Amino acid sequence: MHFADTLIDAIWRCRTPLCLGLDPRWDLLPAQIRRRYPQTEVGRARAYEEFCLRVLGLAEGHVAIVKPQLAFFEACGPKGMTVLRQVVGAAHRRNFLVVLDAKRGDIASTAEAYADALYNVYQADAITVHPYLGRDSLEPFIDYARKTGRGVFILVRTSNPGSNDYQNLDCGSAKLYEHIARHVQGWAQETAGRSGFGLVGAVVGATQAPVLATLRQHMPSALFLLPGYGAQGAKAASLAPAFTGQGKGAIVNAARSILYAPPPEAEDWEAHVFQALLQAKTELAAVAGF
Amino acid sequence: MHFADTLIDAIWRCRTPLCLGLDPRWDLLPAQIRRRYPQTEVGRARAYEEFCLRVLGLAEGHVAIVKPQLAFFEACGPKGMTVLRQVVGAAHRRNFLVVLDAKRGDIASTAEAYADALYNVYQADAITVHPYLGRDSLEPFIDYARKTGRGVFILVRTSNPGSNDYQNLDCGSAKLYEHIARHVQGWAQETAGRSGFGLVGAVVGATQAPVLATLRQHMPSALFLLPGYGAQGAKAASLAPAFTGQGKGAIVNAARSILYAPPPEAEDWEAHVFQALLQAKTELAAVAGF
Repeated sequence: MHFADTLIDAIWRCRTPLCLGLDPRWDLLPAQIRRRYPQTEVGRARAYEEFCLRVLGLAEGHVAIVKPQLAFFEACGPKGMTVLRQVVGAAHRRNFLVVLDAKRGDIASTAEAYADALYNVYQADAITVHPYLGRDSLEPFIDYARKTGRGVFILVRTSNPGSNDYQNLDCGSAKLYEHIARHVQGWAQETAGRSGFGLVGAVVGATQAPVLATLRQHMPSALFLLPGYGAQGAKAASLAPAFTGQGKGAIVNAARSILYAPPPEAEDWEAHVFQALLQAKTELAAVAGF
Repeated sequence: MHFADTLIDAIWRCRTPLCLGLDPRWDLLPAQIRRRYPQTEVGRARAYEEFCLRVLGLAEGHVAIVKPQLAFFEACGPKGMTVLRQVVGAAHRRNFLVVLDAKRGDIASTAEAYADALYNVYQADAITVHPYLGRDSLEPFIDYARKTGRGVFILVRTSNPGSNDYQNLDCGSAKLYEHIARHVQGWAQETAGRSGFGLVGAVVGATQAPVLATLRQHMPSALFLLPGYGAQGAKAASLAPAFTGQGKGAIVNAARSILYAPPPEAEDWEAHVFQALLQAKTELAAVAGF
């Protein structure tokens, strides 16, 4: 398997670059689920499991890839990690690719253990990682990707307001994030598959529309993971520069705007989720060139 | 509780700034332990539990603080997280402070969930975090610290060779890591306790000796967490500029050089660990001004 090629084929079959974020939050869960579990670590974990599995059932065949956010599973203790593994397994059985949003980053010997945890123990097809420690801290993830065909999305330019604090600093001839983008492109080119895209990609906030075209130029071989569409305010039309035609070039994550579209007390919450999913799917299909 | 004040008192009682890193690695465990567990996820987790608990027994009363590295526990799946919690609980019962080396960092709403996981579910006294996403991504951890007196160590200048790639870039009037150090000092000052040190500290590689004096000047209110002493090559004497006298100013992490001091087949591995611990403790006591 080659993550980028497999993902692009799956996007083509689903006709959308939408990536469904799995961010289970107790306070926002449908009341119909929440009222059946105690608000304990284990109760929350089991509620997240039911919620995520039902959402996967709704999304099957409609989107190519899902992105569990590890923080919410970790906040349920060890049982949360058992549920994370069950959710990844269920996603694979329903033919989704899975990117684990873990944002890990450590010195090389520790990064190897994180790569083992995320790719091997929790069976991620791709993961997200922090670049701050430098290239030698990223190499263990990229090595694992080279050997197994999995994917690595490196944080380049994030979607939050504070992303300007450091990422946007002028560092000599380029901004900090442009230095990182240059390295991402090197790794992406080196690992490119038949699609032309590599195993190494870039996280670029969907809210960073003004720089999307420039980043696309700087990283022609990198798939972009674009968070921040929907609840964080980015509009679909502004994402067009990330794409290179026929659905290629990027995946666009939406979590809250889909998962928590239903009114909290709605008994037919699945209908609301499904409708929000189809709406996001259609909006993004047009932008991606389907 | 105020993390910095409590830590400084405990360092005073133990007469050393040594922080014992808990980095359990299957391949390096004493054969005496390893041969009694199968090399499965659960078997490794149980071996790590026995090893860490026995090491805590050796270190009790000799060092003030221990630092479990989450990557190694995560690589044992959900059972690894159960063991992590047991190790933290055992450390607290033996009067150690616990800094969880997690290096998390995400947008604010997700960072809240990580803060809940690390401080509340896994009961960290302090944690390590990534600054790349900017100040708004750090605020949820700092808010939690303000409310509860816990500690946050922000990565400023790391110990690995690749730390030069981005941290050391010239960004206008200062290096990238100096921009971050300036923010750390602001938070540290704002949260300072009676010791003069704040709840927000800085991770500074022990291998960065040439800049330690400058960073101490830039961050007078911040405790430093110095990894890289011992196995990563930093010498004790070079760390003196991090300290402000009487053991104050920094903790120095050592993991591999202590945990894996014994020859792999040694039956009396605990004696070797204890000897390496005392040697590091004594070396660092002198540097810290005891």
